[in-house]
Amino acid sequence: MNKYTPEEPIAAIATALVPSAIGIVRTSGKNCIELVSKIFSRKKALLQAAGNSLVYGWIEDSRIQNGNKKIDEVMLGVYKAPKSFTGEDMVEIFCHGGVNVVTSIFSLLLENGFRKAERGEFTFRAYINGKVDLTKAEAVKEIIDSRTNASRSRAAGRLSGNLFEQISSIKKLILDTIGNIEVEIEYPEDEENISESFDTSLLKAAQKKLSDLASSWKAEKLYQDGARVVLCGKTNAGKSSLFNSLLKEERAIVSSIEGTTRDWLECWTDFAGIPVRLFDTAGLRKTSDLIEERGVELAKDLSQDADVILYIVDSSKGILKDDLDFIESQKNIPVVLVLNKCDSFDLNLDGIKKVWKDSVKISAKNNIGIELLVFKVKDILFDGEKTEREQSGLGSARQKKSVQEALERVTHALEISQDFSYGLDAVVQDLEDALECLGEVAGEVSPDDVLENIFSRFCVGK
Amino acid sequence: MNKYTPEEPIAAIATALVPSAIGIVRTSGKNCIELVSKIFSRKKALLQAAGNSLVYGWIEDSRIQNGNKKIDEVMLGVYKAPKSFTGEDMVEIFCHGGVNVVTSIFSLLLENGFRKAERGEFTFRAYINGKVDLTKAEAVKEIIDSRTNASRSRAAGRLSGNLFEQISSIKKLILDTIGNIEVEIEYPEDEENISESFDTSLLKAAQKKLSDLASSWKAEKLYQDGARVVLCGKTNAGKSSLFNSLLKEERAIVSSIEGTTRDWLECWTDFAGIPVRLFDTAGLRKTSDLIEERGVELAKDLSQDADVILYIVDSSKGILKDDLDFIESQKNIPVVLVLNKCDSFDLNLDGIKKVWKDSVKISAKNNIGIELLVFKVKDILFDGEKTEREQSGLGSARQKKSVQEALERVTHALEISQDFSYGLDAVVQDLEDALECLGEVAGEVSPDDVLENIFSRFCVGK
Repeated sequence: MNKYTPEEPIAAIATALVPSAIGIVRTSGKNCIELVSKIFSRKKALLQAAGNSLVYGWIEDSRIQNGNKKIDEVMLGVYKAPKSFTGEDMVEIFCHGGVNVVTSIFSLLLENGFRKAERGEFTFRAYINGKVDLTKAEAVKEIIDSRTNASRSRAAGRLSGNLFEQISSIKKLILDTIGNIEVEIEYPEDEENISESFDTSLLKAAQKKLSDLASSWKAEKLYQDGARVVLCGKTNAGKSSLFNSLLKEERAIVSSIEGTTRDWLECWTDFAGIPVRLFDTAGLRKTSDLIEERGVELAKDLSQDADVILYIVDSSKGILKDDLDFIESQKNIPVVLVLNKCDSFDLNLDGIKKVWKDSVKISAKNNIGIELLVFKVKDILFDGEKTEREQSGLGSARQKKSVQEALERVTHALEISQDFSYGLDAVVQDLEDALECLGEVAGEVSPDDVLENIFSRFCVGK
Repeated sequence: MNKYTPEEPIAAIATALVPSAIGIVRTSGKNCIELVSKIFSRKKALLQAAGNSLVYGWIEDSRIQNGNKKIDEVMLGVYKAPKSFTGEDMVEIFCHGGVNVVTSIFSLLLENGFRKAERGEFTFRAYINGKVDLTKAEAVKEIIDSRTNASRSRAAGRLSGNLFEQISSIKKLILDTIGNIEVEIEYPEDEENISESFDTSLLKAAQKKLSDLASSWKAEKLYQDGARVVLCGKTNAGKSSLFNSLLKEERAIVSSIEGTTRDWLECWTDFAGIPVRLFDTAGLRKTSDLIEERGVELAKDLSQDADVILYIVDSSKGILKDDLDFIESQKNIPVVLVLNKCDSFDLNLDGIKKVWKDSVKISAKNNIGIELLVFKVKDILFDGEKTEREQSGLGSARQKKSVQEALERVTHALEISQDFSYGLDAVVQDLEDALECLGEVAGEVSPDDVLENIFSRFCVGK
């Protein structure tokens, strides 16, 4: 974290470099307000501004002698330490959202005493100044990247301290247990059987909570990263119609001509809260059209990287041998058999040797069974995990690792408390290790490389 | 302008829908602050906030009973009428810059009493509430779209009132002249010769200023819209090297193999302040490679839409007949003959029948003569117009039209003041017409369709 020198005045463009109504350049650090005043038309107004106030004026380049030294008409958001996002003095410059405007102001700041902020450096300062713990810091990045309401809502839960509180409550259970044991060590009643020498109910409760938290990561990761769902099937089975139905828009060209889709199409969509990257592919058939043939190859490649394959069959044509061949060739990837045009033809699955439990009847054209299909896919993705936790679960693989380690230490402590060959000291050692792991989750103890890994994945300006 | 109903609470997303550190949703209108408080965690703090202040809290969806109702942690910028951009009460919501976050907050506002703002509606309200005149309103759009420092600086000049002041000073000259004439009409000294009956010096000054302003538009338009510059020449003449030199980056693949560039490349760059859309094309040669042949055709098409063509010749190979044929076939587009590799070969142009005045010797590889070439292109684009006006000139075709009309009325007034068959009343009529034209520039008199045309070209959120 050598690059993240605290207090040094830093600046970053905090909005995307795309023309828009408003752009933001944000600054933080020692003398930040004075430094900005050097390029501001109303110096006195800025220097006398209270914290949490907005000041109107112009950004000016005073080095320009002849000609227009005005860069842009702006509002400045002024924050005084410690009441700011970073905990330092901050000025946010709200300017017109032109690319040249924003970059000109940013360059001017760099020429007037500011250093370009590293990725995540604003949030890093918030962390070292005690404004956020690591679970909240990670939630900041997560909330920016979230693709569905459910993803955003779970991240917002962590940002509001929901996860931090759960970790704290587990730590309290462990600390109370250590307290009880220490009383035992000083005033032992029965040295023979340590299993009876302290109350393990608190520790069992901690174990249960840790276990729940650890298993929450699978679902949370799905909400964050999403899943790849690929539509496969023969030409004209209705893949593009289903693609459009799932996206709720006319994205893919639909026609009754076989081989209409050649390139694959992809689009992010929302499967009951899970962000899904949905792929429409060329229909599987032998073809003499070179471009289409390439499309069929690509479809097969794409299906190899899928989390779930939706294999679509035209019910009027039945399930034939080549359909079965494709489905059975997918060894490691779950396939949902989607029976399209169910409103016209009711396909009897008894005739097929193997009956898939994961089959859904739909009509892509008439929007029948689509919601059922979506929930079927969600169930498969969660693979039996509880999806609807009341509270937000873990927010990163890093947190998962630490919670998993804490869980192992607590489980070990419970095991050896049944084993007379261990003393109480060994149990306490386990529990202290567990506390250290939990301390890493919120960042009370975190080595530099862990911090660097967290903050370097942020966007600049956060 | 039926859609632009004043005072009605409006909301818009003011930043680009691209993940970034901070996003902004802005609102304006009657009861705007109360309406936002319905979805804000710290209602009382918001309702009691002073104008130009920042309030911390959470955006919440209170309809969510179970689960997390928190949408995002935000700062609100609060503005009280008339001290705001629009002149109305305003709240700007500074949230995390995730696409889902920004759109969720925006949706929540629409469900809580706000209407989606039309394009430019915030600036339109600023205009009708007397916060900006039309020259400043148009500069708002212009400054967002500006691509170079020079473009931005000229727009900022207009935004700061520079053009408005010039128009006002011309109006004063005309008004003073009308005043003088009216004294003459009431107390005539010599009715025979009206040319001597009033002092035309003020009017001549107005004419000069109007003429200067009208002719400024050509240059200002170039600063706004930029120009298309196309690199042409035989294969291997050094087009891609020059392209990279002009962009100051390695954008095009450079090799000594003929036909390296097939697709054309394009990139915006800065020619001494003028935004230039620069095209690198496939080298002109007869080829049996189908893809390359298509590239050569595209190169010819692109050159037809160019403002300037840079025709590059390898000095070591000299200028041959097919070079001359291409150049001479460009009847309507200025061609600059660029003699590349000048540091190795000094090509004598005397040998060619026609000597181009627009030829520049360069070495693309060693960065020689590039700046000279840039200024040569700029000169050609300006075509003799003065480029470096001290003050910003006109900012739109609309302004040009009105100023041109005012100039014609003033010129006519000066003409008839020499003609005894006209009376002083006719001169006054001309001058009043001229004032009305100038009134349109700043928007003192502007029909609805003119306003609609101006504001509908804005981005949403401005």
